[in-house]
Amino acid sequence: MTGTVSLQMTGPLARVTLSHPGKFNAMSRAMWRELRSAFTAIHEDRRIRCALISGDGGHFCSGGDISEYGDFRFAEQSLSDFHENEVWGGLQAMLDCDVPIVAQISGNCMGAGLEISSCCDMRIAGESARFGAPIAKLGFPMAPREAALVLNAVGELTARELLLSAAVLEASEMKLRGFLNSVVADAALPATTDALVSRMLALAPVAARLNKQTFRALRTHPQGLNDLALNAYAYADSPEHREGVAAFTEKRPARFAA
Amino acid sequence: MTGTVSLQMTGPLARVTLSHPGKFNAMSRAMWRELRSAFTAIHEDRRIRCALISGDGGHFCSGGDISEYGDFRFAEQSLSDFHENEVWGGLQAMLDCDVPIVAQISGNCMGAGLEISSCCDMRIAGESARFGAPIAKLGFPMAPREAALVLNAVGELTARELLLSAAVLEASEMKLRGFLNSVVADAALPATTDALVSRMLALAPVAARLNKQTFRALRTHPQGLNDLALNAYAYADSPEHREGVAAFTEKRPARFAA
Amino acid sequence: MTGTVSLQMTGPLARVTLSHPGKFNAMSRAMWRELRSAFTAIHEDRRIRCALISGDGGHFCSGGDISEYGDFRFAEQSLSDFHENEVWGGLQAMLDCDVPIVAQISGNCMGAGLEISSCCDMRIAGESARFGAPIAKLGFPMAPREAALVLNAVGELTARELLLSAAVLEASEMKLRGFLNSVVADAALPATTDALVSRMLALAPVAARLNKQTFRALRTHPQGLNDLALNAYAYADSPEHREGVAAFTEKRPARFAA
Repeated sequence: MTGTVSLQMTGPLARVTLSHPGKFNAMSRAMWRELRSAFTAIHEDRRIRCALISGDGGHFCSGGDISEYGDFRFAEQSLSDFHENEVWGGLQAMLDCDVPIVAQISGNCMGAGLEISSCCDMRIAGESARFGAPIAKLGFPMAPREAALVLNAVGELTARELLLSAAVLEASEMKLRGFLNSVVADAALPATTDALVSRMLALAPVAARLNKQTFRALRTHPQGLNDLALNAYAYADSPEHREGVAAFTEKRPARFAA
Repeated sequence: MTGTVSLQMTGPLARVTLSHPGKFNAMSRAMWRELRSAFTAIHEDRRIRCALISGDGGHFCSGGDISEYGDFRFAEQSLSDFHENEVWGGLQAMLDCDVPIVAQISGNCMGAGLEISSCCDMRIAGESARFGAPIAKLGFPMAPREAALVLNAVGELTARELLLSAAVLEASEMKLRGFLNSVVADAALPATTDALVSRMLALAPVAARLNKQTFRALRTHPQGLNDLALNAYAYADSPEHREGVAAFTEKRPARFAA
Repeated sequence: MTGTVSLQMTGPLARVTLSHPGKFNAMSRAMWRELRSAFTAIHEDRRIRCALISGDGGHFCSGGDISEYGDFRFAEQSLSDFHENEVWGGLQAMLDCDVPIVAQISGNCMGAGLEISSCCDMRIAGESARFGAPIAKLGFPMAPREAALVLNAVGELTARELLLSAAVLEASEMKLRGFLNSVVADAALPATTDALVSRMLALAPVAARLNKQTFRALRTHPQGLNDLALNAYAYADSPEHREGVAAFTEKRPARFAA
């Protein structure tokens, strides 16, 4: 029983579910590898237009699976392998995914959960969700790539508060801090994300992939705008572009092919 | 009838007005060129201490003028020319303007309107203003320079939401997201921006230009602080500096010459 | 009477107090030098786990000591020395301090006060605290290093508003702008920061120092993640790491040695 990250593709929608019963979906090493496989598959499947990630049993993810820590955390090389390859392999696959990703967050969203949700394009939470990264109680710092990821998503004030004071913040506060797009009643969370995903599935899929590539390039090479601009307009004669403008002009909904 | 961007200079204040009747001030290609001319003129006129940009008829700007799109959007070269030269020419002139710019935003502030307001130093909105960039319905992505601009102004969470879900957000929400300095009753909007502009016109005009140059340099060359610091103190013996400190010491309002 | 920056170390806690009676703790040149000494001492003392900075007499700090300005502000070299060496010497010592710093902010937090609080990891304010940098009334711009610091802490919208309109913002507004972790009733401020500091003192001290080093490196060398990652896991076999994980597994509070 090391938990699972499952992937279910239904037409243009990919559902990814974190599941580790009895541990609030804590990420085991096997789950990090499965997370990587899932998002690599989503990225490579041109039929997929949107991904929704959530957790089983009323929680998103409570962190790492501490029962495994004795096996690898106390030697530099195995600790480095864990963070640089296993954890970052999963998170990098999410960051490299061109398909828009929505996080549906309920219950605990701590440590690994905070990092996974930080890789998503949109974050919708139930009102009782709780956020933190209290690893200062566990005696270790956040790995640099993970710290950079969380810092970018939650902002510097919140990143420092979470790591230096082991604070746990409510969903309403994380909305104010700019980490969440919206907070809804717990019971309304699935219907809210389903409605959002339906809306997103009707939008231009290639444009979404191009926008995500641009955002990624702006983050990794902020000084590379001139190069980006050189290759930014090849979509001009595409069917999707023509359909979108034609539909608007003809006052009808656009129908974007896969 | 392709709309106009008009410039009215009254003493130290420049008023820029977007106007395209019947199209909620959608930006035509001619208007982008006029926007560039207006802000180039403002930047070069040392008498001007503040610029206020607003839209005609209860709206700021609803986006691009889609009736022109068939002429140029479906060929790579003309599409690139449009975004890189016409649109970016206008936006870059705003970003290069050393004079503080206030946006007075009512009604629709979409697409091009969001980009234009993103170039302003302060943004005041009426409570019924609405913000978005729903080009995913039109089948195309945001051009890289424009995406970088909007990302910087609205933050990454909001930029992704606007582009990947075609969301339209209310003024109160955009205040929480950190895009707006304040939101006031629609009827109070002109008086609010007039009061703000009056306050700004009484402040040190050369200091404002130097502050804007510093902010611009920090954005375009974030690692260039040592060079910036080398040339940062030439104002030491200036009349404006002496007048400001003298006025404070003498407990009287400062009178800053042009 | 040029004011003082005093340092009181009690066990693992360092208290830094800004004091300049009758001037709301305005920073004199001597105080900037004392600020540097205080935070250099805190950084170098391995027994210290948390620093708390506050102001005397109901205020944090009202800015610079303008009575000294005539001596040095109107010549380029002495002005540069002041900003680059005295002011930045103090602020850089705070930024270089590996010990977590909490700002307890009441009353006026203007100019130099805004800069000093921008160097802190956490910022807790009383509800009547007021924030600004109205130097446009004094006829001069913000020095580049100080502008970069404040921009990073308050965000671009607020930095431009404070400098270009000389706005003064309330604590509740600065909470919304993302500058403050929390705002409490004025009377509850000392007890709130004391409770926060107590919580922080129980956390892993080496992990805190490593987290602060990572945040600093991410800010100063944002493209240097690969180098950071090479040296990030030397803590694997440390007593602190082992104690934290062991305590969690044994369901007891961790006891972190100095």
